[in-house]
Amino acid sequence: MPLKLYSREYSKEDTTIRIGNFAVGGGAKAIIAGPCAVENSELMFTLAPLLKDMGVHALRGGAYKPRTSPYSFQGLGLEGLQILYQAGQRVGLPVVTELLDVRDFDQVYQYADIIQIGSRNMQNFSLLREVGRADKPVLLKRGLAATIEEWLLAAEYILSEGNRQVILCERGIRTFENYTRNTLDIAAVAAVKHLSHLPVIVDPSHATGRSELVVPVSKGAMAAGADGLIVEVHTNPQQALSDGVQSLCPEELAQLIKDVQAIINCQSPVVGGQ
Amino acid sequence: MPLKLYSREYSKEDTTIRIGNFAVGGGAKAIIAGPCAVENSELMFTLAPLLKDMGVHALRGGAYKPRTSPYSFQGLGLEGLQILYQAGQRVGLPVVTELLDVRDFDQVYQYADIIQIGSRNMQNFSLLREVGRADKPVLLKRGLAATIEEWLLAAEYILSEGNRQVILCERGIRTFENYTRNTLDIAAVAAVKHLSHLPVIVDPSHATGRSELVVPVSKGAMAAGADGLIVEVHTNPQQALSDGVQSLCPEELAQLIKDVQAIINCQSPVVGGQ
Amino acid sequence: MPLKLYSREYSKEDTTIRIGNFAVGGGAKAIIAGPCAVENSELMFTLAPLLKDMGVHALRGGAYKPRTSPYSFQGLGLEGLQILYQAGQRVGLPVVTELLDVRDFDQVYQYADIIQIGSRNMQNFSLLREVGRADKPVLLKRGLAATIEEWLLAAEYILSEGNRQVILCERGIRTFENYTRNTLDIAAVAAVKHLSHLPVIVDPSHATGRSELVVPVSKGAMAAGADGLIVEVHTNPQQALSDGVQSLCPEELAQLIKDVQAIINCQSPVVGGQ
Amino acid sequence: MPLKLYSREYSKEDTTIRIGNFAVGGGAKAIIAGPCAVENSELMFTLAPLLKDMGVHALRGGAYKPRTSPYSFQGLGLEGLQILYQAGQRVGLPVVTELLDVRDFDQVYQYADIIQIGSRNMQNFSLLREVGRADKPVLLKRGLAATIEEWLLAAEYILSEGNRQVILCERGIRTFENYTRNTLDIAAVAAVKHLSHLPVIVDPSHATGRSELVVPVSKGAMAAGADGLIVEVHTNPQQALSDGVQSLCPEELAQLIKDVQAIINCQSPVVGGQ
Repeated sequence: MPLKLYSREYSKEDTTIRIGNFAVGGGAKAIIAGPCAVENSELMFTLAPLLKDMGVHALRGGAYKPRTSPYSFQGLGLEGLQILYQAGQRVGLPVVTELLDVRDFDQVYQYADIIQIGSRNMQNFSLLREVGRADKPVLLKRGLAATIEEWLLAAEYILSEGNRQVILCERGIRTFENYTRNTLDIAAVAAVKHLSHLPVIVDPSHATGRSELVVPVSKGAMAAGADGLIVEVHTNPQQALSDGVQSLCPEELAQLIKDVQAIINCQSPVVGGQ
Repeated sequence: MPLKLYSREYSKEDTTIRIGNFAVGGGAKAIIAGPCAVENSELMFTLAPLLKDMGVHALRGGAYKPRTSPYSFQGLGLEGLQILYQAGQRVGLPVVTELLDVRDFDQVYQYADIIQIGSRNMQNFSLLREVGRADKPVLLKRGLAATIEEWLLAAEYILSEGNRQVILCERGIRTFENYTRNTLDIAAVAAVKHLSHLPVIVDPSHATGRSELVVPVSKGAMAAGADGLIVEVHTNPQQALSDGVQSLCPEELAQLIKDVQAIINCQSPVVGGQ
Repeated sequence: MPLKLYSREYSKEDTTIRIGNFAVGGGAKAIIAGPCAVENSELMFTLAPLLKDMGVHALRGGAYKPRTSPYSFQGLGLEGLQILYQAGQRVGLPVVTELLDVRDFDQVYQYADIIQIGSRNMQNFSLLREVGRADKPVLLKRGLAATIEEWLLAAEYILSEGNRQVILCERGIRTFENYTRNTLDIAAVAAVKHLSHLPVIVDPSHATGRSELVVPVSKGAMAAGADGLIVEVHTNPQQALSDGVQSLCPEELAQLIKDVQAIINCQSPVVGGQ
Repeated sequence: MPLKLYSREYSKEDTTIRIGNFAVGGGAKAIIAGPCAVENSELMFTLAPLLKDMGVHALRGGAYKPRTSPYSFQGLGLEGLQILYQAGQRVGLPVVTELLDVRDFDQVYQYADIIQIGSRNMQNFSLLREVGRADKPVLLKRGLAATIEEWLLAAEYILSEGNRQVILCERGIRTFENYTRNTLDIAAVAAVKHLSHLPVIVDPSHATGRSELVVPVSKGAMAAGADGLIVEVHTNPQQALSDGVQSLCPEELAQLIKDVQAIINCQSPVVGGQ
């Protein structure tokens, strides 16, 4: 059995991934934020400078949206990619967006700084292999019923194709509890830090599905050792085309960043974004 | 909100899907069997006539295998498709195989009579849309953490593209119980018959992961109203390249078919394979 | 490690438990039915003869009800026990009722023919030990998050105190699926028959929480090898004080018994109630 | 519908519970520690002064142990209670121990400062009512498959009997993930603070089942707003009669307390134990 590339045995030292002028992993902490979907240019052009000012390191937004029903809004596609890219360019923020289909790889590669593989595709092995041959960082979300081992082996599909820039993302698992949208598995964050050298961030928005829980859970995740957060934010959560109930408004995100920064500072002097 | 195409409201009458000289749904019951993976031509050429003789309606076998680890056997690919096709042709059995990647669609379409979408891809919406434009039946497995509603909406992605030949397949969901590989959700079979006109079959092999439970669970599924079964069988389960522990040997499958036939007969006079 | 008393290694032969003039286990199949709660004497005195006539073997009804909220109807207590007992006596049916508190043991023992331990108390070890010292059969429901092994070890608490008359009852486990109240684990029935000599019955009412699913799931359970059923029935399900939505009306139960009898007949000549 | 006594609507202000010279809730943070079981007096008399010195606020230890198998060590009973009490008395620490059986109430009441209701008994309503009539604080652990609402309603059983001193304890829920013993539901901690005025603490030992995860998870829990921790510690974890693999040694606990104190300090000036 070859030594797994994701494992602590393979690399004792934490992997640090640099994107533009920030980094994640190896002590560097990163905050990614943006709306669930790129709804229109106004939303993105309004949000981007606000996020930049409050210290966000990268801008997120979905152009291709995986939706449970075929009759729900499916994202703006190429137009969404272009808006996201321009919004990032205007303020100097790298951008993260999800790739759903191997045939869209070139398009997404052209506009994204970090390519996201969503929960539903965590075991879409063709897609994993495709981004495994890319030279851009991949944000790999945990599948909603994936064990920690399956998640790390999904990362191995990417690593084994040559791309060593994998950022893991815990976003909650599906359990019997339905007060929250999913159940954030905070011990999985600690377990991944133990088992792997890869950075792991947390998505408190999908994990909880409730904006009032996003702040406490984010603080908990950072104190437990997460290397960063990816948070949903919207200028008008009530009118978001998707996931409004779990989105923060910009003021709430600014406060979250301050709270999280306090947690980071009391633990370690190393902070991302340098 | 448009009336969902999968729903009982859309069609009160059960959908019957005909494949070669058998049918599934609307009272017709079907048994699909074969090894987990098409390992080599000898296995398939030995099994096919045995299965035909015992009354199996279609032959299954994976050419592209979705495996948790990138270092596990990944299937024979095109060669596997060709062997499966030939094995079916020799004895006059239609064949079922899994499609993993939209780029393999033409190949799989050429050799398969029924195209399987596996659990891990139940919400791979690109793949669903692709088979939604095909004129061959699709076997849609339930995702291991998918709700009944999400499963039916995944079927809707196929139906809404124009392909109305969708066979649903319950194959166990992931729960805390780990004596069995998954937990067969038998009530989901009854619920689907209530909510939808589509046929629904059961995979007792992946559901239980234990050959000794395959027979009782198969009988239970048919008595609860399933329209058929898809069962793993191998000439030498101990030496199977994957899933040996849950595979029946041919003699066990022959007995299962007799047992299941008795259940079917005591319930309804309509039997598949006519 | 002593050989577990519940195990097949301890006794190859199935345990048959006789209650009045019926039996369960070792080929004998039993149907227990009644309302969730003993609401009043009219309900019980009306139902009992109907159930007797349609071939039910024992009458169920809760006098002490474990309710999630302290403000819900908690059962009639001693009065409920007496009504249940009288209803059974009038028509010659043994009765089953739940024991919640060790201090109520003498009362429940006096009026019940079978003592039920509910799901919430499956690991109430004091209660298990108490009924383990009784000379009446115990119906042990599986806890809603109990593994098969934990369930069998709960039975071991009873057996090891000397009471060998334990009837296991699968009533659904808690999973992410919430279309149904719980998820009936039909493979657990088959697994228990494999691992243990004890009889195992199924509660399709609590397992599904939906009356329209009770019949198909009951047929499935019996075909998979269950030794019996415990079903909720009410003269007026819409007005039941608890669990109305999952209760059958008497006519539906009569049909269920016929359907289940057909399944039993096509499998084995041995039928309970002799 | 009466206003629930546990609810924020009933009391906007956090409930603070005082035990001896420490407090929990309303900004006061508490750390409870001790071995899983009171194994013998040497263990307890050795541990107690060590824990006192490192700033632990209360001593835990089980005298009556709820064990999955009837053949496992079941605790020392009354002798265990007395040893625990004496160990606490010697160093001036209040003690916490579990009550399993209503008939042991007087004994446990005599020796314990806080009465624990374990996960398996979260819906043992007789036991809840019994401690609801006591004038000592109750530590109510969440059931391993209990929803947040069921957990709060279990607290309501205690509150509605008159005892308003309920400390909730999140100790992990049962999910499909089995790398950890349970899955710590950190969002439940934040949700409880939102829905209720009662204090809520976290048990990182049972939640994770792995000593190497106890520290990061404890930090996460406190940062997310938990009012305290209950941690397993043993002088020789490898030789513990139960739960050794999840127990810290005293040095590890001392470090945990320092780490947790840093988290608390950077958030709020109020600290328990005053």
